[in-house]
Amino acid sequence: MDVRDYIDQHAQEFFGSLKDWLAIPSVSADPGHHADVRASADWLAAHLRNAGFPETEVWDTGSPGDPGQPAVFARWPAADAAAPAVLVYGHHDVQPAEPLSEWESPPFEPRERDGMLLARGASDDKGQVALHPMGLRAWLAATGQAAPPVTLMLLIEGEEESGSPHFADLLRSRADRLACDVIVVSDTTMWAADVPSMCIGMRGLAEAEITLRGADTDLHSGSFGGGVPNPLHAMAGLLAGLHDGDGRVTLPGFYDRVVPLSDSERDVLGRLPFKENEWLAEAGHSRAAAGEAGYSTLERIWARPTAEVNGMWGGHTGPGTKTIIPREAHAKLSFRLVADQQPAEVVAALQEYVAAAAPPGIEATVSSRGGGVRPAFSPPASAAVQAGKRAMERAFGREVLFTREGGSGPEADLTGILGAPLVFVAVGLDSDRIHAPNERAEKALLLKGAEAIAYLWQELAASVTSSPR
Amino acid sequence: MDVRDYIDQHAQEFFGSLKDWLAIPSVSADPGHHADVRASADWLAAHLRNAGFPETEVWDTGSPGDPGQPAVFARWPAADAAAPAVLVYGHHDVQPAEPLSEWESPPFEPRERDGMLLARGASDDKGQVALHPMGLRAWLAATGQAAPPVTLMLLIEGEEESGSPHFADLLRSRADRLACDVIVVSDTTMWAADVPSMCIGMRGLAEAEITLRGADTDLHSGSFGGGVPNPLHAMAGLLAGLHDGDGRVTLPGFYDRVVPLSDSERDVLGRLPFKENEWLAEAGHSRAAAGEAGYSTLERIWARPTAEVNGMWGGHTGPGTKTIIPREAHAKLSFRLVADQQPAEVVAALQEYVAAAAPPGIEATVSSRGGGVRPAFSPPASAAVQAGKRAMERAFGREVLFTREGGSGPEADLTGILGAPLVFVAVGLDSDRIHAPNERAEKALLLKGAEAIAYLWQELAASVTSSPR
Repeated sequence: MDVRDYIDQHAQEFFGSLKDWLAIPSVSADPGHHADVRASADWLAAHLRNAGFPETEVWDTGSPGDPGQPAVFARWPAADAAAPAVLVYGHHDVQPAEPLSEWESPPFEPRERDGMLLARGASDDKGQVALHPMGLRAWLAATGQAAPPVTLMLLIEGEEESGSPHFADLLRSRADRLACDVIVVSDTTMWAADVPSMCIGMRGLAEAEITLRGADTDLHSGSFGGGVPNPLHAMAGLLAGLHDGDGRVTLPGFYDRVVPLSDSERDVLGRLPFKENEWLAEAGHSRAAAGEAGYSTLERIWARPTAEVNGMWGGHTGPGTKTIIPREAHAKLSFRLVADQQPAEVVAALQEYVAAAAPPGIEATVSSRGGGVRPAFSPPASAAVQAGKRAMERAFGREVLFTREGGSGPEADLTGILGAPLVFVAVGLDSDRIHAPNERAEKALLLKGAEAIAYLWQELAASVTSSPR
Repeated sequence: MDVRDYIDQHAQEFFGSLKDWLAIPSVSADPGHHADVRASADWLAAHLRNAGFPETEVWDTGSPGDPGQPAVFARWPAADAAAPAVLVYGHHDVQPAEPLSEWESPPFEPRERDGMLLARGASDDKGQVALHPMGLRAWLAATGQAAPPVTLMLLIEGEEESGSPHFADLLRSRADRLACDVIVVSDTTMWAADVPSMCIGMRGLAEAEITLRGADTDLHSGSFGGGVPNPLHAMAGLLAGLHDGDGRVTLPGFYDRVVPLSDSERDVLGRLPFKENEWLAEAGHSRAAAGEAGYSTLERIWARPTAEVNGMWGGHTGPGTKTIIPREAHAKLSFRLVADQQPAEVVAALQEYVAAAAPPGIEATVSSRGGGVRPAFSPPASAAVQAGKRAMERAFGREVLFTREGGSGPEADLTGILGAPLVFVAVGLDSDRIHAPNERAEKALLLKGAEAIAYLWQELAASVTSSPR
């Protein structure tokens, strides 16, 4: 039996099991779902144990005063003690599912329809994590081996969708157990189902919330309107001023650590068969592209930093009218970072901007939870990236291109703290509606991904040097 | 017994009865409270009947396809058929009470504390309306008369806090019954408890809601951020652009019908003992005055037009973070109008502005319910205003000054449709927290108001000419 046969024969078992996991609403951002995040970790540990991993553990994170959500660790040593050690990173927590009314089927009642698997987390990231035990079982069955050709470790965290606030601490405190020669990240997307590709970089992330306060109380807009500052006007002004006419972010020093794109970096992106109309359709039928002047869409979303307002509210937002000057205005912002940008510096620049730009009579505060996420980059010529490319090309039967990812994960912490290079292997698509209603994954693509994973371990064993430890 | 003795002896009865009325949550903007609006109308009709009005009626408004909230009409003919007819205008509906958590005592459980009456509607407008039956009873008791010296009519509507959408139609359809020689409006404020004054003008009102749409769905701000328009950014830009650097409204043609303030109009306002610090304290401890360059605070809030954002929302507004580009952004706006500004023209100008300023890829709509409110103005030298001034001066024992009001009511419709001059007699204060949590009225001031009303009818009978009808 070869790898492909094994995967075909076990496909229904694979999807059935994955649906059990997807039914657990492991929303890490919502304290009301923290018990579900733990149930998700327990489910995964049991699943990996059943797949044959001799070591499976659920790791608590955080501290008694600042508890985090649990991560899952599993390890299966290679028969050859000299084989390289590979650490797989993914996450088992999911984004909030709201607005629930926009889901065609309930987000935590997984369905299979028209070749798709529909559920929150189907693509981001439970579907990708599930490829690893499936791929490994396929390789073992195809080769008759009893253990993987590398010492295989999985670290599947439970706080990625909350900005991984305790992940760096976890890596530091568990660095001995996690020592490895290469890190495989399965939390990214491919160019398209028929254009397989590997990510070579992710943007970083900084998040902050702005609160503006005027009077102590809402004021009658007739009695006082025109005579006192309106926090909503002030917020509109602050947010409108975040970008200049060229779509560049105006925060002081924002671009100081942004390395200009090289010609070869632009060439790698330029090889992709980008079609703006198709991309706009995937972007929720957006009506137009927009962004920083002088850059292509792919450069804008992958290789250039951004400031986005994710939420904004204040005053009367219910039915009917209420003629008030509200006492407060609020906005949640996130910044995507590239190259050497540091999340803490970006939050500090926002604080400086808001303090300088808030009008007289408006009290402004900027808060930020967690330390953000640094950007990550993996050179295409590295041994690990080349091994991943060969595994993907065997599974897909065609050339694998390189992309970057606009999203953020704790990749910079992984490579920085563990001192190992990164390779991104995953089969998500931009059309998977991650972070949005009706998240989905293509079933055929998940099976291709499991096949690539089946080949990956031997490719890495053959090309990655094992460090003595 | 003179008027003052009567009022002193019946004060507790007055407040007890008023509290019964205030306990009815007649929130016209909330369909869930429409039964309460009707209960409030029924209560008032019964109360006026008990006070001696021989005719009391509850009038439905609107039409079967567009039902409105009921108004109360009452009439007490003068003994002398040649006496002038006076129509009193007020409203029995109230603003929404949200946010409920900020009320020191529940908004619809009226309390008396520290000389104050605390409840939604205590000042705006049930407390003011209640002065009329109380004042009339006092006059009748003091003079021994069996009927008022004018033919007295009350028209107390139930949709003022919803923009009086059916009031003009009601006036037109009931114009014969409502024919009068002067209109007394009791829905304004005085300068201060110890600086009695009368309003001589109110601003108009136009309201609109802006909706901006980007993609069909919320988008992941990592995958798409920087490449598509963000409706929240677009909304911030539109709202920030509503005012220029001098605080002037930028809508096309907005000032075309605004008559410049005359020197005498500025002098009338300049006579008031305005102290900015005290005014800011009343404005919910606002930290600074702000507004249109070249105008005093009183001119800004009373005699100049405004654009205010009353509410704004979009994207993730709950706990935690959600890194999305939201598909929609919303804002509720209101404009205060002066002189000859027309609500419909202002809404049209907003539509023109939004259509021109919305960025590519953003679908913008501007909606507006109801026809708005036109501005109103009563010349200080008119017979009706002078009669009101004498009544107020008898009650307060000192000179009565003139103010204007920044708020809006259906005064322009009253005078325009019924063809009678207006006089504003009321004893609310800007510190009454109308439209805000913890609305209140000064009990002593309400009693002074009832006294002024007791004198008002004879002053009007002596100076206002009765038209044959």
